[in-house]
Amino acid sequence: MSTRIRDIGEFALIERLIASLPDDARGDGRVSGQQDDCAYWPNEAGKSVVTTDALVDGVHFTLDWTDWRSLGHKMLAVNLSDLASMGCDPTLALVTLALTGDELVSDLEEMYRGAGEIAAVYGVAIAGGDIVSTPGPLTVSVTAFGHMPDGKHVMLRSAAEPGDVVLVSGSLGASAAGLELLKDNRTEPATAELLIGAQLRPSPRVSLGQTLVDGGVRCCMDLSDGLSGDLPKILAASGVGARVELENLPVLPAVRALFPSDWQNLALHGGEDYELLCTVRPEIVNDLIERAEGVGATLTPIGEIVTGSELQFVRDGRPVENTHIGGWDHFGGKKYESN
Amino acid sequence: MSTRIRDIGEFALIERLIASLPDDARGDGRVSGQQDDCAYWPNEAGKSVVTTDALVDGVHFTLDWTDWRSLGHKMLAVNLSDLASMGCDPTLALVTLALTGDELVSDLEEMYRGAGEIAAVYGVAIAGGDIVSTPGPLTVSVTAFGHMPDGKHVMLRSAAEPGDVVLVSGSLGASAAGLELLKDNRTEPATAELLIGAQLRPSPRVSLGQTLVDGGVRCCMDLSDGLSGDLPKILAASGVGARVELENLPVLPAVRALFPSDWQNLALHGGEDYELLCTVRPEIVNDLIERAEGVGATLTPIGEIVTGSELQFVRDGRPVENTHIGGWDHFGGKKYESN
Repeated sequence: MSTRIRDIGEFALIERLIASLPDDARGDGRVSGQQDDCAYWPNEAGKSVVTTDALVDGVHFTLDWTDWRSLGHKMLAVNLSDLASMGCDPTLALVTLALTGDELVSDLEEMYRGAGEIAAVYGVAIAGGDIVSTPGPLTVSVTAFGHMPDGKHVMLRSAAEPGDVVLVSGSLGASAAGLELLKDNRTEPATAELLIGAQLRPSPRVSLGQTLVDGGVRCCMDLSDGLSGDLPKILAASGVGARVELENLPVLPAVRALFPSDWQNLALHGGEDYELLCTVRPEIVNDLIERAEGVGATLTPIGEIVTGSELQFVRDGRPVENTHIGGWDHFGGKKYESN
Repeated sequence: MSTRIRDIGEFALIERLIASLPDDARGDGRVSGQQDDCAYWPNEAGKSVVTTDALVDGVHFTLDWTDWRSLGHKMLAVNLSDLASMGCDPTLALVTLALTGDELVSDLEEMYRGAGEIAAVYGVAIAGGDIVSTPGPLTVSVTAFGHMPDGKHVMLRSAAEPGDVVLVSGSLGASAAGLELLKDNRTEPATAELLIGAQLRPSPRVSLGQTLVDGGVRCCMDLSDGLSGDLPKILAASGVGARVELENLPVLPAVRALFPSDWQNLALHGGEDYELLCTVRPEIVNDLIERAEGVGATLTPIGEIVTGSELQFVRDGRPVENTHIGGWDHFGGKKYESN
C-alpha cells in the first residue's frame, strides 16, 4: 500500500489507474485507443481523435536551451505527431498554461507565435484553453483534436503481424544529437543548426500519416521515447516480437560524424525523433516508399515482425546483446546512456 | 516589453496571446466559444464541445484539506460544470497528471476512484491522457468533451439582453464557507459536513444545463470565480449592465449562521460555487423554475440585465457602493476579502 509512483513507473501506473475506475467510467465499447497515441470514437462523419501531452520546464525542456518561439512550436508539434501516428487530419488544439506569474508577457507572446506558425501550417485552430497559477515550474499542456473521415481506418499499435516489415520515417537520433550539442554548448559544427532544429522544432509527419492510411497501413505509432522504448509498445499491444537490423537504422551522416561512439545509442535510445514507426505487409513496402516520396518523406525498412514477444537487435545476422534497451522512464530512468 | 504576467492578469494575457496568433491559427469561423466556458464547433450530428481546467497543489487545492478521492471528484466536476454551462451532454474526459514521483500509488488510485464515480454518474468515459514528471507541485489537468445534439443551441455568455432576469441555481457561498471551515479546522458544527462537501465535491449542474437549453435559455455560464467575478464576464461579452438585489441572493442558513458578518462576501466573492448563472426573458422565468424543479434543482431570480455596462448591487432599492467587487485574479488577487 505504500508503493510510490517512482517505484512502479509510468506504464504500470496507468494500468493500475485504469483498473481503479468503475466499469461505467472506462468507456469500453464507446472509446478506443487507450493503448495508442490517441483516443478515438465514432461520430456521424467518421471518427473523432484526441491526444494530450504536457511539457514541464526542467523535465521536457529548459529555457537555457530553447527559445520561447521554439517551445511554442514544440508543444504543438509533439501533439500533432500523435495525431499523425493515427493518420488523421488535425483540426484544433487547446492550450493549458501553468505559470508562476514571473514570466514575461512578451515571451509568452513569442511562444504563441511559434505555436501559431505550426498550427497554421497544418490547418489547426488554437481554440482556447486554461491558464492557472503554479509556484512550480512552468508547465504547458496541449490537447489536440483530429478527424478521420468516414470509410478510413485509424492506425493502431495493436495491428502488427508476424511477417510484417518494420518501417521508420526520416532518420533516428538527430533530435537526441541536437540535445547533446545544446548540453555541451557545441554550436560551432556546420551541422549543429540542423540537429538542434530537430530537437527544438520537430516536424510532425502529418501528411505521411495520412498517406500511410491511404496506402493500407494498419499499424503505426510515433517515436517519442526512442526506437528501443517505443517498438516494444507495438510488440506488447500486438502480441508479437521483432528483429531489427542495426545496420539498417537511418542515421544522418552528421550524427555519425559528431558522435562517432554514441550515434547508435542516440538512434536507438535517444528519443524525441517524432518520426513514424509502422509495420506493413512485405508486398506493399515499395508502394509505400513511393507514396512517402510523394509527400516529401522517406521510409526505411529496418527489420521484421516475428512470432514471440522479444525485441532482438541483430548486426550482420548476429544478435547484439549489449544494446542498452529500454525507453526513457519518466520516473527514474535517464534520458539516455551516453555510452 | 518587460511586463510580467502578474502585472497584467489572466484576462489581459489571454487577449494578448490570442492576438499573437496568425489569423490562420485563430479558428475564426471554424471554432466558437473562445470567450465562453467551452470551445465548440459544428459536426454532422450537432456540435462538439470541449473544455479544459487544471488544478495545482497549493493553489487550487491542498492535500492538507482534501482527501484524494474528493480531489478526483473535483478535478472532473469542475470540467463537467463548464460543459453544463453550455447545456450539452458530457461524453468523455482525458486526464493529464504531472507527478513528482513521490506520490503513493494507492493515493492516485483513490483519486481515480473519485473521478470514476462522478464520471459514471454522468455517463462520462475516462479515455486516457498523459502522465509526466514534475519537480514542482502535483498538477492535474482534465479535458472534457460534450455533445450538443442537432437542432439545439449552446448557451453563451454573450446572449444577455436588457430586460432579462438574472437567475442563479442552488445557493451561493457554501463552497467558500466550507473552505473557511477547513482553513480554521472547524469541523464541529453540525452543518460543517454539508459546507465542506460543497467545497471538496461540488456537483456540476449537468441536467439543469440541458433543461435550461430546452426551456429556451440562451445566456449562461457556471460560477467558479464568484458572482462578483463571473457576472461581469456576461456583461462584458453581451455589452450590457446588471442590477443585482443583495437581499435576493440564495444563501444557505448554515452559511449565514456560521459566518454572521461574512456570509455576503462569501456569497458574492467566495467562488467555486459551480452553480449556473443565466439571464432569461421575464416571461419564461416561472416555466424555467418549474422545469428546474423537475431535475431537482432550484433557480432564484437575483436581479435584471440593464443597458450600460455597470454591475450595480442594490439593497432595499438603494445602491451598495462598498461591496468588494472583482473576481479572484489568479495572479495577484486574494481569493476573497474576509471583511
